[in-house]
Amino acid sequence: MNCNRQWLLDKRPRGKVRIGHFRYAEDQVSESGRSANGILVKNLAFHCAPTIRNMMNPPGALMPSIALGSPIMGPAASRIVRSEHPDYPVGRILSRIGTWQDYEWIDLARLRVPLLLCPEGTTPVQALGLYGGNTLAAYFGIKKVCEPREGETLVVSGAAGSTGSLAAQIGKALGCRVIGIAGGASKCAWLLSEYGLDGAIDYKSENVSSRLDVIAPDGVDAFFDNVGGAVLQAVVSRIAPRARIAICGQISGYNGEETKVLSPSDMMRLVYGRAKIQGFLGYDYPEQTFTAIEEISSWISQGKIKMREDVREGFQVVPHAFMDLFEGANKGTLIVMNDI
Amino acid sequence: MNCNRQWLLDKRPRGKVRIGHFRYAEDQVSESGRSANGILVKNLAFHCAPTIRNMMNPPGALMPSIALGSPIMGPAASRIVRSEHPDYPVGRILSRIGTWQDYEWIDLARLRVPLLLCPEGTTPVQALGLYGGNTLAAYFGIKKVCEPREGETLVVSGAAGSTGSLAAQIGKALGCRVIGIAGGASKCAWLLSEYGLDGAIDYKSENVSSRLDVIAPDGVDAFFDNVGGAVLQAVVSRIAPRARIAICGQISGYNGEETKVLSPSDMMRLVYGRAKIQGFLGYDYPEQTFTAIEEISSWISQGKIKMREDVREGFQVVPHAFMDLFEGANKGTLIVMNDI
Repeated sequence: MNCNRQWLLDKRPRGKVRIGHFRYAEDQVSESGRSANGILVKNLAFHCAPTIRNMMNPPGALMPSIALGSPIMGPAASRIVRSEHPDYPVGRILSRIGTWQDYEWIDLARLRVPLLLCPEGTTPVQALGLYGGNTLAAYFGIKKVCEPREGETLVVSGAAGSTGSLAAQIGKALGCRVIGIAGGASKCAWLLSEYGLDGAIDYKSENVSSRLDVIAPDGVDAFFDNVGGAVLQAVVSRIAPRARIAICGQISGYNGEETKVLSPSDMMRLVYGRAKIQGFLGYDYPEQTFTAIEEISSWISQGKIKMREDVREGFQVVPHAFMDLFEGANKGTLIVMNDI
Repeated sequence: MNCNRQWLLDKRPRGKVRIGHFRYAEDQVSESGRSANGILVKNLAFHCAPTIRNMMNPPGALMPSIALGSPIMGPAASRIVRSEHPDYPVGRILSRIGTWQDYEWIDLARLRVPLLLCPEGTTPVQALGLYGGNTLAAYFGIKKVCEPREGETLVVSGAAGSTGSLAAQIGKALGCRVIGIAGGASKCAWLLSEYGLDGAIDYKSENVSSRLDVIAPDGVDAFFDNVGGAVLQAVVSRIAPRARIAICGQISGYNGEETKVLSPSDMMRLVYGRAKIQGFLGYDYPEQTFTAIEEISSWISQGKIKMREDVREGFQVVPHAFMDLFEGANKGTLIVMNDI
């Protein structure tokens, strides 16, 4: 266990992320990271999440940023391999924001991002799925920000993605009429057949606003947005009074593609519609995390929610899998199992 | 009282509003508008409010729109001159969304916009000031949307205007550190000397973001926005975690001037900042209207709030006064007294 493979941030991307922005390296697992409250973990699996692209940007207030030359940060399922802390016994699995390397020391006294100790027997895929940040984002974004009432029309963008597919199904479980927006006819067909959504819009080949006129004639009561840009603008143009818009992500802008304006007429639509646009993170409700997971688990056992993972293999493919995200090539949570 | 002067919407403006978009007309006060629940009012004063410009736009869902050839709609102080309704006695003053004409029939059973019966003795200027929609917008926008806590930093744009100057003073009364944004050095000096604000930024000659770095180094906790566009973007770039942004108006965009993009990085700043952008209207809390007015009155009597009106004279000048708004030529609530 002395060799520690790493993927480092070599250059900051402007626009599309390419393999040249990453650098592969190997070092030794040192004792230097060890502290009085330190535990050593082995990263068993990595979740390639879009938000990693944001952390590759230069530092800005509020937004976490990966330092140049440091390992890429991202959600990881990690097994505790050394610990003297009674609450964190060796062998247990953590769901956390980790880094793209085999081993890491964690200073429990200086956690900057939340860390979830999964129940015994949790697999790495479960740690990144059911116990993962995307699950919490979907749950709290719908429950706390969208606050949908039974019978309301909920729209979810990026609905075939990891967070979006969960958000859409949670909406269904809560009794909403749910319309998913996704890229491509096959993803849209899948939203209807697999998740039983009430409508699907292919933003690549259809006009989102015109389709909403047809399938949501009374307007959109709540919107869970992963995409931003033109899709956000189209949905804002069709909101119902007192609409709630949860901004989870804005993937259309992450790679620096051109993003449409939120025009002033749209802003005034917010005013006349008394609408709310709210940013949030899945980690914002730590005291309610396990209640959330219990409710999702019960929906899963009732067949109301299906979790889907797109699992790949090998530390070497992690950045390649990550780049696939922006091509829309994955269905469900994109996880790479470490071959350590 | 048979002759009824009117200002009608003759053409819909694209971009800047000009006198040619209005048409002066005269007709007779007819009995045709009378209904079982009808009262006849005489419009004593008109408040030239920026939102009238929005109502001159073509109809769009959620947004009220003035029909071509109809009188311009806008806030008015009206005296009841005929009534058989015991709750609305002749002589009393109403604060309401009226139209630019001398007389109007109001069907009390079919009110589409709220109507406030002012206490006996209220003057027309008070009806459009203390009892006016701008006062309610300032109060509820601050109290219900910005929800500022003592010691927090509140920024108000359009701070020398009718709604903005009240919002800024309400923020001070609630114990906030208040920074006003206005156009021009003299308005900014006035914000500091007259209202005792803690800072002022002249958006015409200063860089709003850089100035916020200096005078709000810990970020902006709450923002009451009347302006939108580049000012909104600049403030969003400096928000503190869990900031609340109340969108009251977006005057920079009303006349179709170029408006800056809410860029994707700003949207992600909302996410990482867990920020909220919320549209609202002053009429959204009808059951709390008189409580609001009582609290504002008590602040006025304690000298904590100064109301300022810019009063002009004559029905003929109404559209000209209205156009002055977009030149920033007024200080305080712009009211035109009718010379009926």
